[in-house]
Amino acid sequence: MKLGRILRESFEGAVPRLVVAQPERECVIDLASTEYQRLLRTGASADAARRLASALYPASMSAAIAEGPTFLASAARTVAASAEDGSAPLPFEQVQWLAPLDPPVMRDCLAFEQHLRNSFKGDMVPPQAILQHYQMPLYYKGNPLTLIGHEQEVPWPGYTRKMDYELELGFVIGQPGKDLTPENAFSHLFGVTIFNDFSARDIQMQEMMGLLGPAKGKDFATALGPWITTIDELDVHNLTMIARVNGEEWSRGSSSTMMWQVEEIIAYSSKGEGLQAGELIGSGTVGWGCGLELGKLLKPGDVVELEIEGIGALRNRLGTPAPTGWMPQRRTPAAV
Amino acid sequence: MKLGRILRESFEGAVPRLVVAQPERECVIDLASTEYQRLLRTGASADAARRLASALYPASMSAAIAEGPTFLASAARTVAASAEDGSAPLPFEQVQWLAPLDPPVMRDCLAFEQHLRNSFKGDMVPPQAILQHYQMPLYYKGNPLTLIGHEQEVPWPGYTRKMDYELELGFVIGQPGKDLTPENAFSHLFGVTIFNDFSARDIQMQEMMGLLGPAKGKDFATALGPWITTIDELDVHNLTMIARVNGEEWSRGSSSTMMWQVEEIIAYSSKGEGLQAGELIGSGTVGWGCGLELGKLLKPGDVVELEIEGIGALRNRLGTPAPTGWMPQRRTPAAV
Repeated sequence: MKLGRILRESFEGAVPRLVVAQPERECVIDLASTEYQRLLRTGASADAARRLASALYPASMSAAIAEGPTFLASAARTVAASAEDGSAPLPFEQVQWLAPLDPPVMRDCLAFEQHLRNSFKGDMVPPQAILQHYQMPLYYKGNPLTLIGHEQEVPWPGYTRKMDYELELGFVIGQPGKDLTPENAFSHLFGVTIFNDFSARDIQMQEMMGLLGPAKGKDFATALGPWITTIDELDVHNLTMIARVNGEEWSRGSSSTMMWQVEEIIAYSSKGEGLQAGELIGSGTVGWGCGLELGKLLKPGDVVELEIEGIGALRNRLGTPAPTGWMPQRRTPAAV
Repeated sequence: MKLGRILRESFEGAVPRLVVAQPERECVIDLASTEYQRLLRTGASADAARRLASALYPASMSAAIAEGPTFLASAARTVAASAEDGSAPLPFEQVQWLAPLDPPVMRDCLAFEQHLRNSFKGDMVPPQAILQHYQMPLYYKGNPLTLIGHEQEVPWPGYTRKMDYELELGFVIGQPGKDLTPENAFSHLFGVTIFNDFSARDIQMQEMMGLLGPAKGKDFATALGPWITTIDELDVHNLTMIARVNGEEWSRGSSSTMMWQVEEIIAYSSKGEGLQAGELIGSGTVGWGCGLELGKLLKPGDVVELEIEGIGALRNRLGTPAPTGWMPQRRTPAAV
């Protein structure tokens, strides 16, 4: 199943809705609306049908995933009922996409060795930085409040001149778990989406030298979508991954080249801290999957399209650079 | 006002409740219960009173802060009404504390120069790492799902032998804002709490060398509390900060020694990404405010108490080390 989130206009303004996407028919099925209609047909009152439908299909995808097996079983029943429904599905061209997930926590790894070799270069990077990534699947934590969806414009913060994309898989956690092992971790994976880790390379490199990890270099926007494909529909260990900029292919790779497997990444992420339903873990960039590795940068107005086998294509246009605004004033180290 | 969160037993199991703490009387006032009683006295039906009270005072502190000025104005009215209430306030000895905040995003800075000088030492730390912290108020992002409250036991993950505390202020954001400046940032500060950034020093240092920032070294637990003191009740720029281990004073400092001011930290955090109500930003450790700076470590069973002027004292006991469990198997770099 392919599960997404869209914005729909209502008399209360635009509201987020969960949908099942059907790319072969180029349409989506609004789960709450369809379930409401189905319940009415079974004899439920309008109030009761509305209450039940919105409890089952809230605005939050992570809240829906937290329902456990009830969510997917209900969605299958609702989609089957949509055939009998008077209302037509929404065609893609009328859809305003949101990021398909609103995760409570968001990690991003660096699991592809080729990307590590290509990007941890230069005099600034201490040699032990590379070696550390062979010890454990390291990650940074992103800002889940700045996720954007398919066809949403990427804000260009005023503090950067070096904008880049990153071609990654996004792993969505389905079941809570703590201190998992690679053997039992896979059953905690709900689905996979496309993850474009837009990066402001100039400030990112400065931040990383301070040893607390990237922040402004990443957190202005991460694109996710167009939807989540549930894990039963694909072979996560062998997916072709492609990036195009303004229609031209820049990157091509495969999830088969990961140095750290998704099972290890989930197990490591769960060590000493519980994973919750709806958490998001990025794979890190596939080898040659960003401009940094190719000696290229993005410009305002560029359109970046990431395509991953079994999921679809996530497309975003870069916005216009914002004004620089206030920047911190450099401090002088105190005399010792 | 001093605002906290506690767990109360109910016929549905333990539920989180927002409270106003009155340390001078050693008690807390349960806001939803007191408001429910107040509404009943005004003639509201029991159903209506329950609905209104739980909408005003939900289980989530960040959701309550997101109500804007309504939250504090209502809390003042509810506390005033508690005097007329038949039910007695809850004495501290009956209270099971939770972290006072459930932030959607959690940052932690390194704003005290003395801590930077004391802790960024040794052959492993590249010289540019220290210099970078004079350029901008860098931070890492923590895991808001592993916050613990006053008197909750600190889980000791199996992967560490080097457990430490960190004496910090926790800044709570009250109003959303993006691209703020130091001039307008202060009005976005709701209150201040005590932030004990428990740290697993061995794995933290390894992780930081990989340049993506700390993760397992920090994310197993962060203690917060006992409550949030609203900003009108204290001078955030001049607060005495003390740490005691098993009753013995180990650290003493002041918020007046911050190299980056809270206004700059909030403004920088808001650059290019919006801050939301209820977000949490740690100040970083005050100089000499952790065992690393003193050549000391914590042991299982140790009790760490952090006291900050105008707030109170946050006390936590260290648990027993967990089994090591699965650890990632080191990879061999591929031949080039």
